[in-house]
Amino acid sequence: MRVAVLTRPGEVAVVDRPAPVPGPDEVLVRVRAVGVCGSDTHYFDHGRIGRFVVEAPLVLGHEASGVIEAAGSDVDPTRVGERVSIEPGVPCRECVQCLSGHYNLCPDMVFHATPPVDGSLAELVVIHQAFAHAVPDSVSDEEAALLEPLSVGVWACRKGQVGPASRVLVTGAGPIGLVCVQVSRACGASEVVVTDLDAERLSVAAELGATGTIEAGSVALEDWYAGRLAPEVLLECSGHAGATVGAIRVLAPGGRAVLVGMGGDELALPLSVVQERELVVTGTFRYANTWPAAIGLVASGQVDLARLVTGRFPLAESAAALTAARDTRGSIKAVINPQE
Amino acid sequence: MRVAVLTRPGEVAVVDRPAPVPGPDEVLVRVRAVGVCGSDTHYFDHGRIGRFVVEAPLVLGHEASGVIEAAGSDVDPTRVGERVSIEPGVPCRECVQCLSGHYNLCPDMVFHATPPVDGSLAELVVIHQAFAHAVPDSVSDEEAALLEPLSVGVWACRKGQVGPASRVLVTGAGPIGLVCVQVSRACGASEVVVTDLDAERLSVAAELGATGTIEAGSVALEDWYAGRLAPEVLLECSGHAGATVGAIRVLAPGGRAVLVGMGGDELALPLSVVQERELVVTGTFRYANTWPAAIGLVASGQVDLARLVTGRFPLAESAAALTAARDTRGSIKAVINPQE
Amino acid sequence: MRVAVLTRPGEVAVVDRPAPVPGPDEVLVRVRAVGVCGSDTHYFDHGRIGRFVVEAPLVLGHEASGVIEAAGSDVDPTRVGERVSIEPGVPCRECVQCLSGHYNLCPDMVFHATPPVDGSLAELVVIHQAFAHAVPDSVSDEEAALLEPLSVGVWACRKGQVGPASRVLVTGAGPIGLVCVQVSRACGASEVVVTDLDAERLSVAAELGATGTIEAGSVALEDWYAGRLAPEVLLECSGHAGATVGAIRVLAPGGRAVLVGMGGDELALPLSVVQERELVVTGTFRYANTWPAAIGLVASGQVDLARLVTGRFPLAESAAALTAARDTRGSIKAVINPQE
Amino acid sequence: MRVAVLTRPGEVAVVDRPAPVPGPDEVLVRVRAVGVCGSDTHYFDHGRIGRFVVEAPLVLGHEASGVIEAAGSDVDPTRVGERVSIEPGVPCRECVQCLSGHYNLCPDMVFHATPPVDGSLAELVVIHQAFAHAVPDSVSDEEAALLEPLSVGVWACRKGQVGPASRVLVTGAGPIGLVCVQVSRACGASEVVVTDLDAERLSVAAELGATGTIEAGSVALEDWYAGRLAPEVLLECSGHAGATVGAIRVLAPGGRAVLVGMGGDELALPLSVVQERELVVTGTFRYANTWPAAIGLVASGQVDLARLVTGRFPLAESAAALTAARDTRGSIKAVINPQE
Repeated sequence: MRVAVLTRPGEVAVVDRPAPVPGPDEVLVRVRAVGVCGSDTHYFDHGRIGRFVVEAPLVLGHEASGVIEAAGSDVDPTRVGERVSIEPGVPCRECVQCLSGHYNLCPDMVFHATPPVDGSLAELVVIHQAFAHAVPDSVSDEEAALLEPLSVGVWACRKGQVGPASRVLVTGAGPIGLVCVQVSRACGASEVVVTDLDAERLSVAAELGATGTIEAGSVALEDWYAGRLAPEVLLECSGHAGATVGAIRVLAPGGRAVLVGMGGDELALPLSVVQERELVVTGTFRYANTWPAAIGLVASGQVDLARLVTGRFPLAESAAALTAARDTRGSIKAVINPQE
Repeated sequence: MRVAVLTRPGEVAVVDRPAPVPGPDEVLVRVRAVGVCGSDTHYFDHGRIGRFVVEAPLVLGHEASGVIEAAGSDVDPTRVGERVSIEPGVPCRECVQCLSGHYNLCPDMVFHATPPVDGSLAELVVIHQAFAHAVPDSVSDEEAALLEPLSVGVWACRKGQVGPASRVLVTGAGPIGLVCVQVSRACGASEVVVTDLDAERLSVAAELGATGTIEAGSVALEDWYAGRLAPEVLLECSGHAGATVGAIRVLAPGGRAVLVGMGGDELALPLSVVQERELVVTGTFRYANTWPAAIGLVASGQVDLARLVTGRFPLAESAAALTAARDTRGSIKAVINPQE
Repeated sequence: MRVAVLTRPGEVAVVDRPAPVPGPDEVLVRVRAVGVCGSDTHYFDHGRIGRFVVEAPLVLGHEASGVIEAAGSDVDPTRVGERVSIEPGVPCRECVQCLSGHYNLCPDMVFHATPPVDGSLAELVVIHQAFAHAVPDSVSDEEAALLEPLSVGVWACRKGQVGPASRVLVTGAGPIGLVCVQVSRACGASEVVVTDLDAERLSVAAELGATGTIEAGSVALEDWYAGRLAPEVLLECSGHAGATVGAIRVLAPGGRAVLVGMGGDELALPLSVVQERELVVTGTFRYANTWPAAIGLVASGQVDLARLVTGRFPLAESAAALTAARDTRGSIKAVINPQE
Repeated sequence: MRVAVLTRPGEVAVVDRPAPVPGPDEVLVRVRAVGVCGSDTHYFDHGRIGRFVVEAPLVLGHEASGVIEAAGSDVDPTRVGERVSIEPGVPCRECVQCLSGHYNLCPDMVFHATPPVDGSLAELVVIHQAFAHAVPDSVSDEEAALLEPLSVGVWACRKGQVGPASRVLVTGAGPIGLVCVQVSRACGASEVVVTDLDAERLSVAAELGATGTIEAGSVALEDWYAGRLAPEVLLECSGHAGATVGAIRVLAPGGRAVLVGMGGDELALPLSVVQERELVVTGTFRYANTWPAAIGLVASGQVDLARLVTGRFPLAESAAALTAARDTRGSIKAVINPQE
């Protein structure tokens, strides 16, 4: 089979590899769509993300969908032919974190496209059967791939306890910010304000349900919210320290700040604000148990993932796909078809 | 001012009474719309609901909106002229339940149209200022009145933890069932199945977002759900014991049964089902802290209350309004305008 | 190895069977202590519990501890020699319930001593390594076995949200009631009232931390609580319908009724009480993620399990052990040593 | 009546003032004991805490108990003579925060000894009747006064979700740290490790239930926890930025950091740690609905407040009491008797 491997920073090669063989509880999936994530681009550019360093050729890609082509010996054989969305991290399912439902915190997680584990930019991948989620026909291959970033948004909204009539502030209108907007609305939030530097992305946010948009830098958040009810939830998707602190400062008493975006090792937390308003600040690390909700949201039309796709690439053009978001104006999400 | 009083079962008279005078922390509201609730009709028909007995002429009505006409000495005088929805129960705000946010459980609650407390079928009423909730212009007078039954639905969904992609079963498509359908969808539920005996009401339910409808009696719930994923939440709005038990029996493991409908003193709870599936069964009693959410849901268009109004009556025709729901085919909610 | 098998109701035979061989992720445990549970006795007496019917010779026992004697190929070999408490149910660890931390609701649970799965009344048993919990030296073999019933109490207290200064009512002072008393106190409950027919058991309850005891039948609960603050949590451990309903009726507004005891298929739930007080009624089914807490409670001395052991038996006297609780005055918990 | 007023930083004068007159819903309390808090000392030393500046003579003291001497017109007159603990903050009980149970976040809170509101270092004070909590005879006057700092600990444990078998780290063994240790144990924590610079305070912590103590600076927390299970909850009571960050860094995945101690405006939050472990960081601001639990914990003997009292002073020696903690080796909590 053909796979796209990152050979060194800035270089992706399409090479042939033997097709993987599913273990007893795994399925073999013919991959139909792979979304490009900012972390893929970061590995492409820098060869590392924090303590994760690419030391050998690595297959990128962890937002994938496809069709089950073969099933391991312990898997229901009728699943062959099933269209699935791949949840790209398989935990040990034995540790305290796994058994208590927090499998995203499993210390032995095996996660696609995180060195040294290969990802899904390949014609075929294997995955534990429980992490190959069946999708209905109303969910397209591309949408099925993008259930992964949607899961990040579902998880953020859970952590932030977004619910009916919540007032939400989303900082950053990249792909994750845009799913956070949509999930917030789907959870019943009546106000979802989005900030970004890029007016074009803000207009997409508005199209997808944001009730207000703010061009970052054009006005201080504090001024914008003066005379308005303060937001109860911050979904931080920019990874920008200044934006994060500024947004925390406008939260309502009892507010929740969910730090999704990554950036930097330290955050200058405004301590007295956190204390006097009893803010809750929490990070998110991937997600757990989100696929059923994500599938439901897309299948029922509450979330529009197709709108995020701004570029389509064959496997051979993976490098172009990996850099589309940073090089192409108006680009939100590139999707690669490994069968092409 | 004119008020409509229940003088004895089956008899409502419009009489003149002195206008009430607001206390220091109260506002005087000129009432513009009053929704008729099943409990009003029950008092009209039977003169009592359980331990609450009408022993003196009683003003019915507890779903009301209007305009602030005067403000007590401790109230911000700029509130005069404000359009408000009236939350009809004022708790003591001193007891353990009140201070911990569960004011609906306050033993000293003073609640409109619950003997011996008069309701809002009057040209003017007074209410504690904190329970006169300002509504934006996008919420009509009738909608503002119907925030009260909407609150019942918001509360039920909170108790049932309805969220994104929840599977919900609503038994009973009366006014409360119909708001439960809408709030469930607004909370992100991807499946909301409704049962009722009345096909017409079921079609309204479908119009308002139900994803499935079942004519009660035409098929056993167990059969209907065979081969489908079981519902996670039951919002019981029929008050019918058989429907309640049947619905509890189809709940998924870990499911929540929220008993909103009243009816009978005992329920034959299927104990082994509750235990083996660890079901959570809870009653609801009115609501607490629901108005902000209810206003947000209507103002943002997530919930359509106008669709529920099937009859409009002047104060003099209160008796007709009180019996519309039981006598008029297709009637859902009658609204009385006390200024007419 | 020798095992004690239930051959038919009322008859237990000690027979030789081949020693089991641990699978790759299992350990072989030399069993040192097995507590007798009421369900064991029920199978002994009746050959069935509800839909679970003993159709072939069955090894009883699911409260067990021992020492790891051999480890499967995927298990850390240094675990051999480790003293462990056996969690007797192994879930699939793949389904929605398992992955979200509710593994007790797994439809494919394999649970010791539940037909057709054999239990631990044997010299040797195998168990998945994640369900063989290491215990420190401060926890004896017998205590390690009784972590299983303790887990039932931990789970009940979690469901009932017992916390600092909670007022708890425990109905039934059998082994489960007695652990519920102790866990409630360990969680900070300042009032734990226990009811039972048996004065002797009530005195043990008092010894183990109950702050009040009531001889069932000697006074109506409603009268006993008149003038006292109502309990916030009911931990129902009697399995008696009348006791359950009576206890639900005295709960405080917002109270939680946790139905641990089994008995009968239906419960005449006092509906208006549940609704007006917004009571939460829930069943419990086994437990999930309780062993770490249970071990901590015993190791730190907060819970005394040794006090519950009122009889010790060699394997050959399993029948006597199985009937001790029902035949011997003052008996609380019989423990069998399969090595004797 | 005599009161002790802070006339300027470093100067407290005992002066005569007219006795206050209770409003309709207030009680007049003859004060029997007032604990000295670090904030009192800070006002004494600096004349301000952050944005709260002492601009006129201020009565300090907000940890108080006494006996009801007179009751306002709306108060049950039989309360005269009742021994009470004073909850020193009275919220508006009308705003969204109050009605939803978060009254500590009320923007209109009136709080004792916070400029310009006088405190309780006086022979007599008035307080809203709902905030004068009856205490049983088993709780002494001094203990009743110290229910206020105990409430801070109860609140911290609630925010940190301390429960059975929790592993807790308390940084700082001052009065608040010491109540946090005790409440943690009362909640069932099986491990409570305390850090402080002062060995003497650590020995008191051990006496009151700490299972481990660490002299700050003698060993890095990371080294101390190497090979041990990481703590799940941090109750930060030192107000020291370095201690806070170091403690956050050792928290277990999913851990909660509760920031009780005040100090500095910014905290250099280790962002990647918070994200990868999904830590929850929250501040606390006073408390809400804690008195019933606090009374229960002391009355039942689960918490020992008497041990904290290291100095007793008459009103005239208030200045000595206010500086005892900082000037006297071994001092934990000074208590003033305003009747002497």
